[in-house]
Amino acid sequence: MIAIKGERFLEELKEQGRIGYREGEGLFRDAYSANYERARAFLKARMEAAGLHTRIDRVGNLFGRLEGTDSRAPAILAGSHLDSVRGGGILDGPLGIFAALEALRALQEGEIRCHHPLEVVAFTAEEGGPLGGTFGSRVFTGQMETPPSAKALGAAGLTVEDITASKADLSRYGAYLELHIEQGPVLWKKGIAIGLPTAIVGITRYRVTVQGAANHAGTTPMRERKDALYETMATLCRWIDYVREKEDLVCNVGNVEILPNEIGVIPGEVRFAVEIRSTDEGRIADAADRLKNLLETPGSCRAEWGLWVRKPPVALDEELITALEGSCRGLDYTFIRMPSGASHDASPLARVLPTAMIFVPSVGGISHSREEFSPKEDLLRGATLLARALVDIDALLD
Amino acid sequence: MIAIKGERFLEELKEQGRIGYREGEGLFRDAYSANYERARAFLKARMEAAGLHTRIDRVGNLFGRLEGTDSRAPAILAGSHLDSVRGGGILDGPLGIFAALEALRALQEGEIRCHHPLEVVAFTAEEGGPLGGTFGSRVFTGQMETPPSAKALGAAGLTVEDITASKADLSRYGAYLELHIEQGPVLWKKGIAIGLPTAIVGITRYRVTVQGAANHAGTTPMRERKDALYETMATLCRWIDYVREKEDLVCNVGNVEILPNEIGVIPGEVRFAVEIRSTDEGRIADAADRLKNLLETPGSCRAEWGLWVRKPPVALDEELITALEGSCRGLDYTFIRMPSGASHDASPLARVLPTAMIFVPSVGGISHSREEFSPKEDLLRGATLLARALVDIDALLD
Repeated sequence: MIAIKGERFLEELKEQGRIGYREGEGLFRDAYSANYERARAFLKARMEAAGLHTRIDRVGNLFGRLEGTDSRAPAILAGSHLDSVRGGGILDGPLGIFAALEALRALQEGEIRCHHPLEVVAFTAEEGGPLGGTFGSRVFTGQMETPPSAKALGAAGLTVEDITASKADLSRYGAYLELHIEQGPVLWKKGIAIGLPTAIVGITRYRVTVQGAANHAGTTPMRERKDALYETMATLCRWIDYVREKEDLVCNVGNVEILPNEIGVIPGEVRFAVEIRSTDEGRIADAADRLKNLLETPGSCRAEWGLWVRKPPVALDEELITALEGSCRGLDYTFIRMPSGASHDASPLARVLPTAMIFVPSVGGISHSREEFSPKEDLLRGATLLARALVDIDALLD
Repeated sequence: MIAIKGERFLEELKEQGRIGYREGEGLFRDAYSANYERARAFLKARMEAAGLHTRIDRVGNLFGRLEGTDSRAPAILAGSHLDSVRGGGILDGPLGIFAALEALRALQEGEIRCHHPLEVVAFTAEEGGPLGGTFGSRVFTGQMETPPSAKALGAAGLTVEDITASKADLSRYGAYLELHIEQGPVLWKKGIAIGLPTAIVGITRYRVTVQGAANHAGTTPMRERKDALYETMATLCRWIDYVREKEDLVCNVGNVEILPNEIGVIPGEVRFAVEIRSTDEGRIADAADRLKNLLETPGSCRAEWGLWVRKPPVALDEELITALEGSCRGLDYTFIRMPSGASHDASPLARVLPTAMIFVPSVGGISHSREEFSPKEDLLRGATLLARALVDIDALLD
């Protein structure tokens, strides 16, 4: 019988959440900041107190290992990231790490010994930033075709050699499991305890410039304007209306710059970025084509665009998902399969290792905000399922 | 016979245009700047060389007076402003001043003596800025209900007493005439030499905030978003489409701020300003009502708005316009009546004195840009008409 100690787990989760927390503002724990170092030191001490063997690789990923009965078997890795967005909540990332740590403590206390070694991991720099997001897990899995600039690396105190040296020997790992808050409203709205992501969405971003002509806003008749803002708005509304009708497809607009953005001058140029997410690459391509088509439609302005980001969708491991469904049934937890609309460390991991994720509900779907919240019952179910899944997957991998 | 000297006039216009001009950038002649002072000194010297009696009031408006046969008759005032937008052209403002100066020279050379005194005026700070636009002419006509802040006045080296002391004795003036480039494409497109504005548009501006909810752009389904940017764009497109169908009505959007304007976050709040211009106050009110109606339409976001600027339209003097039509016929110039979509010193003047304007074509309708341009034939026609009109109006006022 695996029994996680709820109070200990929740207390520890709260305690780590105080490191870098500003009252009324949220968590500030950028990777490589002093707050980040303090949080990692806290976690490392707790890992060691739990009898785990710890190590930190040269980019800063922290591992805590519990040997199995077969020390030559590939390890089952479980964790998430310890860094936060600026002004974020205390669960996005740390939940998956501290739940894994609690699971390993519970297994030991229940005298349950797995065949496979179990490792808790705290990846670094998962959140976007100068290093590009999911940095620690991309380094770990050797997915670093284009390393960050020397400047970005230097700011983190890193070199290209640190990246090369931190690539793991993946033959030593058999699976990756990541517990995370959903960061969306689906589970909360449906009142379902557990979400089992089947895939992580791909993200494609374009940068667009719409070129019109700035002119006097009083003397130029409406029909003779080359109003870059009006044309941008008309195009984007038509495009978003198209996306809204589709399943498994979302889009967003940001990084908008309007020139000159003065009330007495017709906007001469608008620059913006669009983002398209889906688990289906075909849908992303269709949405991009639709946008290009709308931008090409002759109007009074001229549009140019360029691909900015392209991260393909990644499927999670069907065998592991099926095992997790079994674990849920065993615990009598309600669950659904669903896509993950956010990127996670599980994305790079899933390209090289059998990988699965567990989602717990986010109240109101709020995320990347100090108002991020999940009830403790949901957190406990997540940790309990993770502990149970480690045992079930240990058996599965045999 | 009044014969303006084209070469002299165009040469002088060019020469003044070099004061504050940056190659490739345009004219930089903010009111109260060193460039502005140099341009005014240049004009004052030219006025004096032309035998005019000059004076500068305490806010900086410059007057050059030519006595008539009846020195007690009210003066006919003609001019415009000497300041420019930053990076503007050399005609917006100065054309009306230097054409009036040339007209007075031509009258003297033709030994034509008017009954009424004639005054050339160079108003200060017509272009928008800390002092609020049409500053010099509002001071001159005593339309300064809300004076600029002490800070704005101080930056210009002015006090509230300067404003009070610079209000003119309006009983000493009988009419105001302003020659100006159209700043729009109407005359140029139609190939018509002269525009006679019947009214100057009113300008109403609102500030609007659309409040949604920032959230993760990947995990929040499209239908569950409170996307303040999407709602803003949909509302503004509907509104602009309405305005585009109307006559004598234009609108513009500016001062847009998107929060947080990050590609991975659904825009939670959008702030912007809208501007409505028409010569018909009813049309402005209808357009404002239409906007409010659209903003009130229930959606996923909440909108708030507040009136920011309200300058009512002002009609120009019918008798003067008729006289100008006669002057055009006498010179065999093509002309049309039209609204003025831009504000001018003629706006405050028209509220207190019989006022008329003369427009000459702007190539491409380009304005507030170093690319502002009018062919010299059009400039000469404008100056010739202004000279002729001074004589015709001198007779009319008798």
